Amino acid sequence: MNLIQLRGGLGAVPGVKLAGIHAGIKPRKPDLALIAFDSPQICASSITLNEVKAAPLLVSEEHIAASGEQMRGVVCNAGCANACTGERGMRDAYATARQAAALLGVEATQIVVASTGVIGVPLPMDRIAKGLERAVKDLGDGSEAAHAAASAIMTTDKHSKLSAYAFYDGEQRYEVGGIAKGSGMIAPNMATMLAFIATSAPMSREALRRELREAVNESFNMISVDGDMSTNDAVYAFARPGVDDAPPGFREALQTVARDLALAIVSDGEGAAKLLTLTVSGARDQTQAQTVARAIINSNLVKTALHGEDPNWGRIIAAAGAVQAGINPEAWSILINDKTWVDVGALEVLSEAEAHRELEHASVRIRLDLGIGQAQATAWGCDLSSDYVRINASYRT
Amino acid sequence: MNLIQLRGGLGAVPGVKLAGIHAGIKPRKPDLALIAFDSPQICASSITLNEVKAAPLLVSEEHIAASGEQMRGVVCNAGCANACTGERGMRDAYATARQAAALLGVEATQIVVASTGVIGVPLPMDRIAKGLERAVKDLGDGSEAAHAAASAIMTTDKHSKLSAYAFYDGEQRYEVGGIAKGSGMIAPNMATMLAFIATSAPMSREALRRELREAVNESFNMISVDGDMSTNDAVYAFARPGVDDAPPGFREALQTVARDLALAIVSDGEGAAKLLTLTVSGARDQTQAQTVARAIINSNLVKTALHGEDPNWGRIIAAAGAVQAGINPEAWSILINDKTWVDVGALEVLSEAEAHRELEHASVRIRLDLGIGQAQATAWGCDLSSDYVRINASYRT
Repeated sequence: MNLIQLRGGLGAVPGVKLAGIHAGIKPRKPDLALIAFDSPQICASSITLNEVKAAPLLVSEEHIAASGEQMRGVVCNAGCANACTGERGMRDAYATARQAAALLGVEATQIVVASTGVIGVPLPMDRIAKGLERAVKDLGDGSEAAHAAASAIMTTDKHSKLSAYAFYDGEQRYEVGGIAKGSGMIAPNMATMLAFIATSAPMSREALRRELREAVNESFNMISVDGDMSTNDAVYAFARPGVDDAPPGFREALQTVARDLALAIVSDGEGAAKLLTLTVSGARDQTQAQTVARAIINSNLVKTALHGEDPNWGRIIAAAGAVQAGINPEAWSILINDKTWVDVGALEVLSEAEAHRELEHASVRIRLDLGIGQAQATAWGCDLSSDYVRINASYRT
Repeated sequence: MNLIQLRGGLGAVPGVKLAGIHAGIKPRKPDLALIAFDSPQICASSITLNEVKAAPLLVSEEHIAASGEQMRGVVCNAGCANACTGERGMRDAYATARQAAALLGVEATQIVVASTGVIGVPLPMDRIAKGLERAVKDLGDGSEAAHAAASAIMTTDKHSKLSAYAFYDGEQRYEVGGIAKGSGMIAPNMATMLAFIATSAPMSREALRRELREAVNESFNMISVDGDMSTNDAVYAFARPGVDDAPPGFREALQTVARDLALAIVSDGEGAAKLLTLTVSGARDQTQAQTVARAIINSNLVKTALHGEDPNWGRIIAAAGAVQAGINPEAWSILINDKTWVDVGALEVLSEAEAHRELEHASVRIRLDLGIGQAQATAWGCDLSSDYVRINASYRT
């Protein structure tokens, strides 16, 4: 299957209009995005497993349950999470959806709402109301509109995150595109950030759900910035209503968009200077491979060693053993950038100086082979820097 | 029960001799400790759950299985973990025990060996052999000898860690004392550091095991510096052989020593400037309380907020929800230094400025009441600072 890479993320999908404006929720930065679909869309979601879920997540799940075959738009604000805001938070999320629906001439339940930012602070509803009125007038298609929307959902992100591909089913061309935001509170095993993905390919709602679940499991669920699971984060996917499975090629296109966005999030992790691609191979099964891979990218000691380019492989194997996934302490080996670093029996093949040189790259690939079976999984992480501490020690100030 | 606080940690227990010397495993710092018991001791251990266990742990478990009613000493080195060192590591650990036994005139299986430091590097056996010969000559009792031993097991610790108490059973006085080391790779739910505890009280081995398990569960298992579980860490407890349960008062004395040492470890966490005492109350049961408490003290976002004295209570409740222990998102409240910070319904009672002032203390107490039941648990953590990153980015260099 050949994928054709496109510019413009969500804006590359026909029938998707976008806007991103400064509503005044945050000082100086764009903070309100609006996405509108020309025609009703089916919708699938993957939301945080955190027991404390923000109001917009709860409202959006209600709306998708009611109108999941005919969704018409998304409102997303940055700067305020609308989480732990009680009844008022729910009222504000409903009101936001109602206003967006009225402006777009659709029903409130056809709107997904999403928020990201500080917890425990109510939404500034007057600013959102005025902002939405301007955003509706700003709606446009193509790359520029998508960049505006992708910028307006950013919090501590340094770069906007967009990905899009086209594929052909015979003569018929389809697009898949998305936008996403990070960059703190990113941890594996859950929907951990905000991403909005749309496709021009038609399919049944069940097919979209299944495809999204698989794509999320190997992308957004395999990245970690800091091991913290957010109250707010979610992936929403939209497609044209159909009765069948997705056309051939959709799976690869969706997985590629999801992986692109996930990697963009982890590369832009708070304070991150290095991307770690961590593969666990030789595992008994997929679950073991994923469990061990996630444990390693989540280890503060692995992350600080990566930051310092310190060839401390002991921390990698210690993190693998700590998660108690049934590894064999005698059978493992470690490769770095495809070179054998430590062979079976804890035999150091690369010298400390050689391993240090491999760690100097901005993107480092490490593979831990468990020497047990055939399964493998890849997770993506980043280093832990003083900048992460600085950013998070004074997030509100 | 009245406990009498004593100086000198392990050195306060009659019949315990100690030495700590510089064997040259680390540059310039004391790095080899020897503990010798005048009479055979029963021994109980609580060791790391990491699947990758260092050679000395495996050898010591063998020795305790063989001679657990008649242990005579401990050798502990810093600067090299003797972990992931294969067959050679096992041979070195056996040889260390053999030599110490010969010098003390006892059997090799009567010796516990322990190591801490870098993973994947073999023990410098010539230095350990020469060091042991000097250590045996240095053995002494009392506070000074205990401080020397406590200093010789330190790695990145800034302070040596000792605790001792006496208690009376009628006219009979007994002592409990210990030494410990931290300070990275400290995480809850496991034996996570090195501690050696002895008592002059007699009891059965089963009683000592039971008492140690309980004490560890509420002390060493409830602290976290960085969420990383070590390959090496262990708590060993020694007592005089007896046939009965421990004398009344022993439990409180042991738990106090264990808590003192655990708090000393977390207060001296790598780069830590603040101690967080985190109590979860109003829980359904003890397991829920402990699970939530550990999740909060392990959260990098909570730890960086503490470091920045940033009153970001949203991160506390987000960490509590992320662990999926069944909290009620509507029922919780948060207290800081015994003042209500956020009341039920996410109602902010303290202003941001007031909460900030509470966070300025070097020791901060936070209580999350889950509003469900009556159980509670306390965990101890520290802040995450740029110094932690600096220390761990170049541990070997």
